[in-house]
Amino acid sequence: MAEAAGRVAIESVTPEVDSGRFPIKRVPGETVIVECDAFADGHDVVRCLLLYRREQDTAWKESVMRPRGNDRWRGEFRVEELGRYAYTVEAWIDAFETWRGNLVKRIDAGQDTRVDILIGVALIQSAADRASEPDRELLARWAGDLSAAAVDTVAQSLALNEEFASILRRYPDRASATRYPGEFRVRVDRRKARFSAWYEMFPRSCASSADKHGTFADCEARLPYVAAMGFDVLYLPPIHPIGRTHRKGRNNTVEAGPEDVGSPWAIGGEAGGHTAIHPSLGTLADFNRFVSAAGRHGLEVAMDIAFQCSPDHPWVREHPEWFRRRPDGTIQYAENPPKKYQDIFPLDFDTPAWRELWEALREVIRFWAEQGIRIFRVDNPHTKAFPFWEWVIERIQSEYPDTIFLSEAFTRPKVKHRLAKLGFSQSYTYFTWRNTAAELTAYMRELISPGIREYLRPNLWPNTPDILPEYLQIGGRAGFIIRLILAATLGSNYGIYGPAFELLENTPGVPGGEEYFASEKYEIRQWDLDSSVSLKNLIARVNRARRENPALQHDWRLHFHEVDNPEILCYSKTNPDCSNVIVVVVSLDFQHVRSGWVRLDLDKLGLSESSSFQAHDLVGDGRFLWQGSRNYVELDPQGVPAHILRVRRKVRSEEDFDYYL
Amino acid sequence: MAEAAGRVAIESVTPEVDSGRFPIKRVPGETVIVECDAFADGHDVVRCLLLYRREQDTAWKESVMRPRGNDRWRGEFRVEELGRYAYTVEAWIDAFETWRGNLVKRIDAGQDTRVDILIGVALIQSAADRASEPDRELLARWAGDLSAAAVDTVAQSLALNEEFASILRRYPDRASATRYPGEFRVRVDRRKARFSAWYEMFPRSCASSADKHGTFADCEARLPYVAAMGFDVLYLPPIHPIGRTHRKGRNNTVEAGPEDVGSPWAIGGEAGGHTAIHPSLGTLADFNRFVSAAGRHGLEVAMDIAFQCSPDHPWVREHPEWFRRRPDGTIQYAENPPKKYQDIFPLDFDTPAWRELWEALREVIRFWAEQGIRIFRVDNPHTKAFPFWEWVIERIQSEYPDTIFLSEAFTRPKVKHRLAKLGFSQSYTYFTWRNTAAELTAYMRELISPGIREYLRPNLWPNTPDILPEYLQIGGRAGFIIRLILAATLGSNYGIYGPAFELLENTPGVPGGEEYFASEKYEIRQWDLDSSVSLKNLIARVNRARRENPALQHDWRLHFHEVDNPEILCYSKTNPDCSNVIVVVVSLDFQHVRSGWVRLDLDKLGLSESSSFQAHDLVGDGRFLWQGSRNYVELDPQGVPAHILRVRRKVRSEEDFDYYL
Repeated sequence: MAEAAGRVAIESVTPEVDSGRFPIKRVPGETVIVECDAFADGHDVVRCLLLYRREQDTAWKESVMRPRGNDRWRGEFRVEELGRYAYTVEAWIDAFETWRGNLVKRIDAGQDTRVDILIGVALIQSAADRASEPDRELLARWAGDLSAAAVDTVAQSLALNEEFASILRRYPDRASATRYPGEFRVRVDRRKARFSAWYEMFPRSCASSADKHGTFADCEARLPYVAAMGFDVLYLPPIHPIGRTHRKGRNNTVEAGPEDVGSPWAIGGEAGGHTAIHPSLGTLADFNRFVSAAGRHGLEVAMDIAFQCSPDHPWVREHPEWFRRRPDGTIQYAENPPKKYQDIFPLDFDTPAWRELWEALREVIRFWAEQGIRIFRVDNPHTKAFPFWEWVIERIQSEYPDTIFLSEAFTRPKVKHRLAKLGFSQSYTYFTWRNTAAELTAYMRELISPGIREYLRPNLWPNTPDILPEYLQIGGRAGFIIRLILAATLGSNYGIYGPAFELLENTPGVPGGEEYFASEKYEIRQWDLDSSVSLKNLIARVNRARRENPALQHDWRLHFHEVDNPEILCYSKTNPDCSNVIVVVVSLDFQHVRSGWVRLDLDKLGLSESSSFQAHDLVGDGRFLWQGSRNYVELDPQGVPAHILRVRRKVRSEEDFDYYL
Repeated sequence: MAEAAGRVAIESVTPEVDSGRFPIKRVPGETVIVECDAFADGHDVVRCLLLYRREQDTAWKESVMRPRGNDRWRGEFRVEELGRYAYTVEAWIDAFETWRGNLVKRIDAGQDTRVDILIGVALIQSAADRASEPDRELLARWAGDLSAAAVDTVAQSLALNEEFASILRRYPDRASATRYPGEFRVRVDRRKARFSAWYEMFPRSCASSADKHGTFADCEARLPYVAAMGFDVLYLPPIHPIGRTHRKGRNNTVEAGPEDVGSPWAIGGEAGGHTAIHPSLGTLADFNRFVSAAGRHGLEVAMDIAFQCSPDHPWVREHPEWFRRRPDGTIQYAENPPKKYQDIFPLDFDTPAWRELWEALREVIRFWAEQGIRIFRVDNPHTKAFPFWEWVIERIQSEYPDTIFLSEAFTRPKVKHRLAKLGFSQSYTYFTWRNTAAELTAYMRELISPGIREYLRPNLWPNTPDILPEYLQIGGRAGFIIRLILAATLGSNYGIYGPAFELLENTPGVPGGEEYFASEKYEIRQWDLDSSVSLKNLIARVNRARRENPALQHDWRLHFHEVDNPEILCYSKTNPDCSNVIVVVVSLDFQHVRSGWVRLDLDKLGLSESSSFQAHDLVGDGRFLWQGSRNYVELDPQGVPAHILRVRRKVRSEEDFDYYL
């Protein structure tokens, strides 16, 4: 016979990911709202505590959970520091509260309570035994006075003394408490994991003339341009030496000419591998200077982690055991039959030398972390073994807790989600291919559903160097504006690949394909940054709206509102107390003027049907007077077919002309 | 660094209850359909096996899981024997299938495959090393022939030989397989746990005249009556000696007269406790004879397990430590302040002597199990410690695997569900208070939802000795018929408390209350079984419909169909292949004739819009010719305001007049 477990059952603790197998994610200052079912047999009063601690601490902190009805309890704690927290739940039967509640009922029913008072005396005395001074003395005196009270009404009144009870409640009898058998974890990343605007740029295309290979000094000159658009993460494709063997030519041709620069993702050459810098870009010192300069412009540099090797990578010679060898003695190149990528050797995660391989890969990330890099965009993590990612992210983050990893897993949903669970701080999404109102609504609702949002932070990209989506190919200027505004306001994390994006680059390599013509992956491009078609000013306004409005810095309170025109999408974001409210209205039609009536769910916005408010368009700077839920919108693809409306409530004061806050 | 885990991730295994903490439930012959997500990094082919075994066996049996798309897999196994089974999932990367699939693509693309053939040779050879004779020899020869094949097309054709491949597939390389880290359990109860019709009857009311206390011999005489109605479980309230101290009088009065027989739930007196028989009913031998006689009538006797004691129970003297003592030296009686139940002492599950208490209670159940009793209806299990139930049910069922426990937990939802998880085979439900179409639909859908049906088997009761619901108080004969047909067809397990039910007893003890006037809990009743109002013939028809139609013997395929009259409820049940289809149409209005158009979801019934079929009413024996989804119904509370329609498909043969099967 097992030791009798506690009489309280605890079930259905939330939030949790796969029953606690993986941590939930937060940033400092955020709250973890924990709920559980806790109940006992019979009618006794149950009490429930939320226990939490930083993972490295041994002692639990406690937070009272309160009943929500139907045996559900809720408590919460704030996370303040980077790293990991743990939490669980404990519950027990509170004999004192049970007794007290019953006593009230007995008194109300006019019953004899003399024996009940004596039961209470014993309960108070046992609490006194658990208490520390001076409470011990005080509770003991209470018990004494209560047992000595000769008049029933005096005893009853003394028994129900609220002041004494509140002291007693500090010393519950938790000897028979039930502790939930599992512990749950929280990974706390820094704030940028939740709110960031990424700009991807090829450093080698930053030179002042087209026939030159850009350097980090050129990149430095580009910083004011990027900073002026309001981004805060500057992400560079790999900056390492590029292989010569089987190098790809322009437009991904199999034979490279002598002038072809190759793909930056074919990492490794004479000058080194994953910890080396491409000589044409500069030196490590140049790189570090550039990173510092970027910081002064408010731009944090993100590096690309692409764990694969060109045939010329030093590891191919030094560690042949990390690659798979074919029966003819050659090394297995990357392939997705019948496609072959002979310029790239994948690392063999099935190698018996996997321990050394894992360590070497970890050392690559550490090397760059030691240079001050704290954001890594990981290329194709879904083609490397899952256990490796869990291990390496945990190791890096325990050494550098402010490290952020973005998963570039454009792959099947389950695989993408697994990578997020394993530790990636942000994830690329299918947003890139979601175009209609129904698609966008369903997908964003899925991403912010309780089962997913706890571990996956979406990062929305309208384009990447690999993906020029059909919508941008055919949508013209309006199409680019629509996709920009959707990405930047649906997602608190978003990014664009520029200058291709702001310059409306839309020619595909082959019709029906999604590769860019003259893709920067294979050649240096010169961009006319001052082109009159550039969206740079619009982008700057959108990023300013994001920075100035806390509502746009979090995804969970995204809410979609009805519009009577299916080509118009309307959604809102708010901060928790609705003091900051953003309503976005976007036409998804890049060809025709679209109009319709929006029906706002006012309760989501902290507004009432009778209230009028100013809807201030942070993009076009227009100001509309709206009232209640139904309001008219008209969106023209010739201009900006979208509004990012900040709701400004009327201040009903005649003393001031600033009616709207 | 941990040992590198397998590259395959396994997630979201279903079915499961609280991540495997509790078993799912089945009966012999049923299938457990197991699904999981299983996927690896990259594009390699994954294979997935369902592992299962009887819990006492050490070796797993294996069943192949097949992909369902989106990385979801499905497999199944049948349970055949009572007791417990375990199951889990294993998955691995299949190097041979990966190679084979890629080879096909390469051949289709006209690529050179010489090196690939050599890779295949190595894979086949390693499979040969794992194989047993004669397959080992055969595979080795295949590898040899393949490596010797000089002509490419010959080699390709030999490499893709399907016969050899199917032999090779018997010897997968599972060295790096991922085993799901948890195991899941199945509790297999006998078939009656899923399909049963209960009749509750007070033995002491079975005497031939009102002034006599019924005996087991009287009960024996009553058996043909109960059997004729078609029930298969005969449930008796407690048959033990009844306490005299604080005995309750008729209609639950506090002072019993000398003639008052007391409540059978106030267990224990001079003649003994939970293993004794009330002397007025007879002896243990009489009881055993009655149980045998019942069996001959197709009736299995269910006993009441009510773990509480009258003040006269032998345990009060023999084991005072099993009761809570008040400061005045008296034993704590049952109460729900301000209500007091001085005729009942609860057992104290918090006693330091809980081990001895648990064992004694187990011995009570064992005692009756040894008399051949295998069905126990447990009184108020929600007022006893949860861990006790899990322990005692597991112990009893490992000794007597055919034991069924019905949980009488009319309490809060979470508590009721916990008890089902802990092991109760069947559970009373809130059906008793669900009257409207919306209430019934929502509640039954909840009960058969995947999250609940795996552990909770509903048992639907329109009335009990404790509950005469308002609907029966005011609904008259039609009301009783409606509730009977709902219980018997919505639930594969159902029961009535008779003869109060079939004789339409509907007078409450106090207006607004749910107790019966002149409740059999406190007095002997004489029933006029031959009354013309009796529903016994109707009940017999309903129970025959249940016995003859497998569709009504399972709850999971219950489906609700639209009716354009909200007072009419329409639902169907089918067996898995829709060879047996029952459509029930019930008016919920006991006052007015109701008519409406039913819209059947034909795909749930294996029917098409163009097909006509006979709807044969198993209650009224009417036959209707229905076609397609929309059909008219009219239900009159003066008659039977319900149809239990068996769908009989037309047999399109002119050789026979039996058009309908």
